[in-house]
Amino acid sequence: MSQHRLLTLTTDFGTTSPYAAAMKGVILSINPHIQIFDLSHDIPPQDTRYASYFLASAVPYFPSGTVHLVVVDPGVGTERRLVCAEMAGQLFVAPDNGCLTDVMKRLGQPRQLRQLSQPRWWRPEISDTFHGRDILAPTAAYLTLNIEPEQMGSPIRELIRLPDLPLNVDANQIQGVVACVDTFGNLITNIPNRLLQKRQIAAVRVKERTIARYCRTYGLAAPGELITLSSSCGHLEIAQNRGNAARLLGVEVGEPVVVEFQD
Amino acid sequence: MSQHRLLTLTTDFGTTSPYAAAMKGVILSINPHIQIFDLSHDIPPQDTRYASYFLASAVPYFPSGTVHLVVVDPGVGTERRLVCAEMAGQLFVAPDNGCLTDVMKRLGQPRQLRQLSQPRWWRPEISDTFHGRDILAPTAAYLTLNIEPEQMGSPIRELIRLPDLPLNVDANQIQGVVACVDTFGNLITNIPNRLLQKRQIAAVRVKERTIARYCRTYGLAAPGELITLSSSCGHLEIAQNRGNAARLLGVEVGEPVVVEFQD
Amino acid sequence: MSQHRLLTLTTDFGTTSPYAAAMKGVILSINPHIQIFDLSHDIPPQDTRYASYFLASAVPYFPSGTVHLVVVDPGVGTERRLVCAEMAGQLFVAPDNGCLTDVMKRLGQPRQLRQLSQPRWWRPEISDTFHGRDILAPTAAYLTLNIEPEQMGSPIRELIRLPDLPLNVDANQIQGVVACVDTFGNLITNIPNRLLQKRQIAAVRVKERTIARYCRTYGLAAPGELITLSSSCGHLEIAQNRGNAARLLGVEVGEPVVVEFQD
Repeated sequence: MSQHRLLTLTTDFGTTSPYAAAMKGVILSINPHIQIFDLSHDIPPQDTRYASYFLASAVPYFPSGTVHLVVVDPGVGTERRLVCAEMAGQLFVAPDNGCLTDVMKRLGQPRQLRQLSQPRWWRPEISDTFHGRDILAPTAAYLTLNIEPEQMGSPIRELIRLPDLPLNVDANQIQGVVACVDTFGNLITNIPNRLLQKRQIAAVRVKERTIARYCRTYGLAAPGELITLSSSCGHLEIAQNRGNAARLLGVEVGEPVVVEFQD
Repeated sequence: MSQHRLLTLTTDFGTTSPYAAAMKGVILSINPHIQIFDLSHDIPPQDTRYASYFLASAVPYFPSGTVHLVVVDPGVGTERRLVCAEMAGQLFVAPDNGCLTDVMKRLGQPRQLRQLSQPRWWRPEISDTFHGRDILAPTAAYLTLNIEPEQMGSPIRELIRLPDLPLNVDANQIQGVVACVDTFGNLITNIPNRLLQKRQIAAVRVKERTIARYCRTYGLAAPGELITLSSSCGHLEIAQNRGNAARLLGVEVGEPVVVEFQD
Repeated sequence: MSQHRLLTLTTDFGTTSPYAAAMKGVILSINPHIQIFDLSHDIPPQDTRYASYFLASAVPYFPSGTVHLVVVDPGVGTERRLVCAEMAGQLFVAPDNGCLTDVMKRLGQPRQLRQLSQPRWWRPEISDTFHGRDILAPTAAYLTLNIEPEQMGSPIRELIRLPDLPLNVDANQIQGVVACVDTFGNLITNIPNRLLQKRQIAAVRVKERTIARYCRTYGLAAPGELITLSSSCGHLEIAQNRGNAARLLGVEVGEPVVVEFQD
């Protein structure tokens, strides 16, 4: 039995396109005993920042030995690197475009960092537009067969990191932005809960609205009420109970959010 | 080999959000040998009635021993109970908010009914807004390791049931409602096929339209024709052959439907 | 251990409807040890041509012994046949409506072609509107238990094939159509790359726009630039770097595309 028997997929391919399906075929042709788990194929197209947020919210819960294959790759076929890395005992195979930025913040410095440069582990023909199928998927499959990362290519020093989202912390207030809008229309900000603990919040402002009420969870607010709360991912969140805050406020990712303190 | 080696997921998290992915990680960290099957992550947000319909249409086909994890949880963090139960040899882990109403109608009275009250089986830190990850997922995972439901918490008497949808049966007609609109725009009503057997239907009326034709299946109607038929889930259905009846008629869930009999 | 331990699902059921979930239950009730892989449940409703394109882009990458269950079935309950077939060591279970047309072009003539006519392998009750659950799913499940295709029904000669999309090859130009629009809005045509090799393309015309630039991959174009390239599936593709060509051009499947040569 392989040590690495779990493989996850995170892509922006959608489920109408055949691209994720083709990758599953490539993986199973190399290791038909592997279990494949779809994390998401609905990362917004080419949105490496969203991929970074998504992965950091999910992969810390997986067991050591899991192999994570990430294909959000706007630079496919250009000079950007393809890499594999180990973090907290989990293995990652991805383009080096920042999509692992937030995972590194959660799991710490990557080890066994390699640029994929050994065509031996790739499909025999490499298309210019689908390295997910032709390079990344077979690499991930061979990792589940316990081929070591060091056999995949030459060592590299570090991965590309996305620039931090704007976050300004003053004595009286914190200025951040909406980092993500979830399925329910909840606005997840980049303001960490730990900066809010032990302080008295006077108000949270977003798009000329002031939200006065902080709730422990959605259902404690009145139906339709706008509230702020601590998200399950560790950041300040703005939500509407039984509603969709993003639609109500007309807010998208990047919208400034200000927290004002009483003390 | 575990007796309970199949685990299914039904949520309203969508596939863009990382919430379902995080639950998979929690489950696999507890039992890396389990097979996880996605039933749906696209239950309409917080729609416990749709979840109830969905589950009753799918879980009766699963084998005894399957563990079904359901996370449609508008009351997360409030006083609503989290429960586990056994029905027809299958195990269910869910919030007690009515989402199992129709499953109980199909599979009979739940047994081994327990409120989840033993933090021993939960994640060490419990967020206020994501009990799916912190309580329900680990509970389901331990059930697949053959921990018994009785170890999960204190016994309870019964589950919350959603009120029945309106259904009036007279000598000459039946009045019901659209209970569900499926991917094809077919309107699934709450009128059971068994009430229509051996009777002559004169007409079915919905939104000021009268549908005269009953067909055994879609393809027997003319392209674009509106028909009524017996749905594969055991209820009267209104469909448009090669079209979308919901869009054509402008009908949503809850719309009244009347069946008139000739005899 | 079964020889056929991998089973894939390709349907137009969507993930909101309970139909794909019900099929998974039926399959697991017959063979709880099988691994099920979702290829897609988001084939456009009843679109057998899209299903054909999708399958041909994905199934060639799967290993011999995989069982592919395809349920895109506008003719459910009518006289259309249900079939199973073997191609390149993989097994297919599907309605005989052309959905395997492009797979046959890729994998060659089907062998062991059978019409499903042995109710012994079906569910005891057959609905008129959901043969996917009642006939196709149990058939696929028994194939994974190494029941031979020849036991599923009577032999047939050949499968229905969809008519070829229009493709005219002249000395100076090729006229084809958009065969598919993918998740990124890329336009995949029916013009094979091999007809373009060793020739100098003067321009590609679509919807009164002329695209002069051929690129090896998306990222080599300027942001927003329209380009043509060789798709990873072997056909001419029209794309907008970091954009959505289909939305930009207002193009749908079937739109004529003309390639003009310099030589």
